[in-house]
Amino acid sequence: MYNKTMQKKISDKVINRLTLYHCILQDFINSGSDYISSKQIAALLRIDDSQVRKDLNLLSNSGKTRVGYPVKNLKKSIESTLGFSKTKKAFIIGAGNLGMALAKYDNFSNYGLNIISLFDNDPNKIGKEINNKKIIDIKELPVLVWKHYVDIAILTVPGKYAQQTADYIVNLGIKYIWNFTPVVLDVPDEVQVWNENIMGNFLQFTYNIK
Amino acid sequence: MYNKTMQKKISDKVINRLTLYHCILQDFINSGSDYISSKQIAALLRIDDSQVRKDLNLLSNSGKTRVGYPVKNLKKSIESTLGFSKTKKAFIIGAGNLGMALAKYDNFSNYGLNIISLFDNDPNKIGKEINNKKIIDIKELPVLVWKHYVDIAILTVPGKYAQQTADYIVNLGIKYIWNFTPVVLDVPDEVQVWNENIMGNFLQFTYNIK
Repeated sequence: MYNKTMQKKISDKVINRLTLYHCILQDFINSGSDYISSKQIAALLRIDDSQVRKDLNLLSNSGKTRVGYPVKNLKKSIESTLGFSKTKKAFIIGAGNLGMALAKYDNFSNYGLNIISLFDNDPNKIGKEINNKKIIDIKELPVLVWKHYVDIAILTVPGKYAQQTADYIVNLGIKYIWNFTPVVLDVPDEVQVWNENIMGNFLQFTYNIK
Repeated sequence: MYNKTMQKKISDKVINRLTLYHCILQDFINSGSDYISSKQIAALLRIDDSQVRKDLNLLSNSGKTRVGYPVKNLKKSIESTLGFSKTKKAFIIGAGNLGMALAKYDNFSNYGLNIISLFDNDPNKIGKEINNKKIIDIKELPVLVWKHYVDIAILTVPGKYAQQTADYIVNLGIKYIWNFTPVVLDVPDEVQVWNENIMGNFLQFTYNIK
């Protein structure tokens, strides 16, 4: 759920689908395929063929040919359209299992997300490294926000510390929070929060099971 | 992204918002508040007041009074509408950081998701417990799927093992896969997959940053 009205050319739903197409293209590249059809993509996602074609038509250069889309070309086209090349730097706040999982997720760098380091207040974690990213004492955050010009925080602290941590990082100049905690944060107007709302996603999935 | 046409009374977007309202109501209960207004909810989520009222009107019994909605009553009403009371059993496949994080997430049980156990093939993990859930050898999955009548799997294995693991669990009778891997799975028609697509969510968030 997005908290601010934005002027955008591509809707959230299309962005979501384009990233799924991007995953499929990576699989095709890994398996040595040169071309892909909109039907193949549609079948994997169980959506309509015409929907896929419509989405791909939004790209600046999908490179469609008689034998289908050239896989590498199409992948690059999605990347440039969605701005993967503009790298965004972020800190992970909270080095628990979820923070660690996100730090390990190598795919992020393919999508232009550069996670600089993790922060925690647990002396047993501070100083350790995960996937070449250091876990740093949260007390050092004020200095490092300025040093690295980071304004995106990925919030993965336990729910009971979510609001106080948000207050702390917003005060330091963080402008964008990707919120993985199950708490709806109360932040100043100029700060944007994206609530990951994992449970909401699950309920959409299971709402009609049995 | 949902892969099957469903007849549903409540749209995905509304379900998503209702779970966010539910989080807010829990916060209000924790802080000892008895009543909440649609304006308070709308302000926290930065959405329109009228949208909140419209959503809450869908509930069977929102209990609206002159001084606002009674918090506990409204929370129960959301729970019964979204079917939190119908408990769903699930296995986590892959006891890495993400699997562990989800196993630790106590909130799931509040939403009717009962995670029975985790499965992995790493001898160093097998036999350990996390949040009272055992990590079991993946080889024992065939027996346990039948023993517990589980047909929901939460897939948190590394991307390179995603498709082969999906083939294996589908073959054992798993009908619903909550897919946290960055791979689009190729599964039989009767199996439903919900792609968590974390990167897609992030890109929706950051698409218009700078």
